[in-house]
Amino acid sequence: MDLRLEPATVRGFRFAGVCAGLRNEPGRLDLGVIAADSPVAAAGVFTTNRVKAAPVLIAQERIKAGRLQAIATNSGSANCFTGKAGLKLAHDSAQALAGELGCDPNLVVPCSTGVIGRLYDLDQYRAGIRDAVAALAPGGFEQYARAIMTTDTHPKMVSTSLRLGGATVTIAGCAKGAGMIEPKMATMLAYLITDAAINPPALRRALAHVLPASFNAITVDGDMSTNDTLILMASGAASHQSLDASGMVKFERALDGVAATLARELVRDGEGATKLVTVEVRGARTPAEAERVARQIANSPLVKTAFFGCDPNFGRIAMAIGKAGVTIDLDRLEVALAGIKLASRGALHVEALPAAAIKMKEPEFTLTVDLKAGKAKAQIMTCDFSYDYVKINAEYST
Amino acid sequence: MDLRLEPATVRGFRFAGVCAGLRNEPGRLDLGVIAADSPVAAAGVFTTNRVKAAPVLIAQERIKAGRLQAIATNSGSANCFTGKAGLKLAHDSAQALAGELGCDPNLVVPCSTGVIGRLYDLDQYRAGIRDAVAALAPGGFEQYARAIMTTDTHPKMVSTSLRLGGATVTIAGCAKGAGMIEPKMATMLAYLITDAAINPPALRRALAHVLPASFNAITVDGDMSTNDTLILMASGAASHQSLDASGMVKFERALDGVAATLARELVRDGEGATKLVTVEVRGARTPAEAERVARQIANSPLVKTAFFGCDPNFGRIAMAIGKAGVTIDLDRLEVALAGIKLASRGALHVEALPAAAIKMKEPEFTLTVDLKAGKAKAQIMTCDFSYDYVKINAEYST
Repeated sequence: MDLRLEPATVRGFRFAGVCAGLRNEPGRLDLGVIAADSPVAAAGVFTTNRVKAAPVLIAQERIKAGRLQAIATNSGSANCFTGKAGLKLAHDSAQALAGELGCDPNLVVPCSTGVIGRLYDLDQYRAGIRDAVAALAPGGFEQYARAIMTTDTHPKMVSTSLRLGGATVTIAGCAKGAGMIEPKMATMLAYLITDAAINPPALRRALAHVLPASFNAITVDGDMSTNDTLILMASGAASHQSLDASGMVKFERALDGVAATLARELVRDGEGATKLVTVEVRGARTPAEAERVARQIANSPLVKTAFFGCDPNFGRIAMAIGKAGVTIDLDRLEVALAGIKLASRGALHVEALPAAAIKMKEPEFTLTVDLKAGKAKAQIMTCDFSYDYVKINAEYST
Repeated sequence: MDLRLEPATVRGFRFAGVCAGLRNEPGRLDLGVIAADSPVAAAGVFTTNRVKAAPVLIAQERIKAGRLQAIATNSGSANCFTGKAGLKLAHDSAQALAGELGCDPNLVVPCSTGVIGRLYDLDQYRAGIRDAVAALAPGGFEQYARAIMTTDTHPKMVSTSLRLGGATVTIAGCAKGAGMIEPKMATMLAYLITDAAINPPALRRALAHVLPASFNAITVDGDMSTNDTLILMASGAASHQSLDASGMVKFERALDGVAATLARELVRDGEGATKLVTVEVRGARTPAEAERVARQIANSPLVKTAFFGCDPNFGRIAMAIGKAGVTIDLDRLEVALAGIKLASRGALHVEALPAAAIKMKEPEFTLTVDLKAGKAKAQIMTCDFSYDYVKINAEYST
C-alpha cells in the first residue's frame, strides 16, 4: 500500500485553515473547516472520558443520523467544562458555518481543542468562519491540518489511493495529538476523508474495524482527553461501481493503513518524545490480558524514562508486566528489544544489554514480550518520557 | 501524639547497618540487620505484583507463623527475576544471619532492594553479616535505615511513645522508597518495631487497620515494586499489663500515626519530588469510587507536571476525574486547591487562579475534589513530576 505523509485532495471535499485570532498568536492558524459539496455519509467515535467537551456532546448527537456536510474545528479552547454557555457557544459555532454554507445546521459538527474551562469569542469565531468559507479549496488540506494543532510540532497527514469498483478512490486523514493521549475510543482529533461511496452503517463498521489497531493502540502519557473525536466521511465522488464484500475488505484494509499510520505519527510527535516504541505482547491467554500487559509497560513512567535514557532496564519491564495482574510464569517469559533477547528461561542475559542499549539509540524500535501462556497478542505504540515532556507540561499555562 | 522524625531505641531490639561492598560504592552502607533478643510476634504484608522477588517469597512463607527473630536487608540488588539461584541465595542469606545469631533460620527473613535481575555475591554478603552482627546495638536504628536506601536522599525514621497498660511503649518505624512506588498492599521496604506485648493475630489486625491510610495511600509514579515489604514486630519488652480493647485502640492509633508519617516521608522524598500534594476526594458514592478518582489525579503525568510548574491547571484535573469512569455531575463538582476554589457550579473561577498558583509554590498543599454525589471519601498522597524524576530514571543504570 502506498501511504503518503503529505497533503492530498479528495473529490467532493474542500478545506481551509485560517487565523481567527482565537489563540492570540498573530498569524497562527486556529480555525479549520472541512466542507463537502453536499451531504455525505459519516461515522464517528468519541472520548469515553466522563467529562466531555460541549462540541463532543453535539457531534455525538448529530453523527447518529449518518450524514454530515461540514466540520468546523478551532484550537486554543477545548470548550470543555463550560456549562450551558459552552453548549450554546458550540451550537452557535456550528450555526455560523451552516449559515455561511447555506446548509442544514444539523449537518454541521463543531470540534474544539485547547485549554479546558474557557470559552472563545463568538464574534471572532464568526469572522474566522467567513474567512475560512471564502478560502475553501480542494487543496486546503494542509491549512486545515495546521489549524487544529496545539503542542504538535508539525501537521499530521496521511493518504493513500486504491482501485475500487472500477475507479480510483482516495482515503486521506489528518490528526492532532501530542499530549493527554491515551484514547480509549478515538484519538484527540482525527479526520478520515474519502471519495468512496459507502453507506453510513458500512462506514461505522469500517471505523470500528480499524480502531483497535490504530487510534486505540497508542499512548503518549496515559491521560485521556475530554475532546477525543474521530470522524470518517465518504463523499462517493469517486463514482465507482457499488462495492461487494471483497471491495469493502479492500477499502477497510486501505483505511486501516491510513488510520494506523496517522496514529503512529501522533505518537512519534508525542510531547517531548524522542523515540517511538512498539510494545508487542504475545503468548497471552486472552487478548485482554495481552493488552493489559502491553498498556502497563507502555504507560510506566519508569519504563518510559528508561527508553529515554537508552537503558535496557529489564527490571522495570518485569515490574510493569507483574503489575498487570496477569498470571506469569517467570521461567517461560521471554523479553526481547529490537530482536535482542534480554531475558528468557528465568534468567537475565546481562551480556546482551550493551547491544540492546545501542539499538535503543535509534528513533524507533520494538519491545517484544512473550508470556508463553497462550496464543493471544496485543500491540501498543508508545514514546519515551523526556525532560521536554516535563518542560512542555510544566510551562504550558492554564 | 508526639511523632519524632529521628532515630529511636526500642527495648528488645538491636540494629546495625554496614558496608558489605554489595553496591561497589566504598563506604556506602548496604546491609542492615534488625535482631530481637529472642523470638517476637510479627506480621507482614507484601507486594501484589505478580513478579515477586525471591526474598519476598521466603518472607511471606515465614511470617505466617507470626514469629520472627531477625531481618537482614541489603540494597544494591533486588534479587528478583533471579530464578532458583535467587531463591537459594535468599535462603543462604537468611541462613548466614541465623548462623551468626545462633537462632532458627525459619525465624529470619531476608529483604532485598535495588536492581532487578542480578544476584549479589554471597561471600561478600556473609562477611557483611558477620560485621553487622558484631555491630548490633540498641542505638543502631539510623545505620539500619541508611543501609536500606537506594535513590532516597535521606533515611526515613519515625517514632512515638505512649503510656499503655501502665508502662511506656515505643513504636518506631523506618522505610525506604523514592521510586517504583504505588504500593497496593505495602510500600517498598518498611519496618515497624515496638516493645509492646501484642500477639500475632492482634498484630496482623493492627497492620491491616493502619494500611489503607498510610502505605496504601501514597504514590510516586504509579509503578508497583516487585519487592514491597512491610513488617511489624513486637518484642513485649515494655512489660506492660495485658491490653484490653481500649488499649489496643490506643496502640493502633499510635501505630497509625507512625505509619502515616513514614508513608508521607516516602512521598516527600519521592524521586525528583519538589512538593507533597494530598489529593482528597469527597462526596463520592462509594469509597472505591472516591479512591479511583483520587488515584487518577494523583498518577496523571499531566497533573503532576502542572504541580511542578505551579500551574493550577483545572483542565487536567477535570480530565483525570473524568477518566476514572465514575458518573460526574459537572454542575455540582467542586475543586479547591489549598482552600482556594478553582471551580464550582459548572464554572471555572479564573480570578482565583493567580492566588492558587502562589499557594502551589509551597512545599505542601492539598487538592480537594468534592463530587457532591454521596458521603464517601478517599485520600492519596502524591508528589510532583519534575526534570529530576526524568534525570534520576533515565540515568539510573541497569
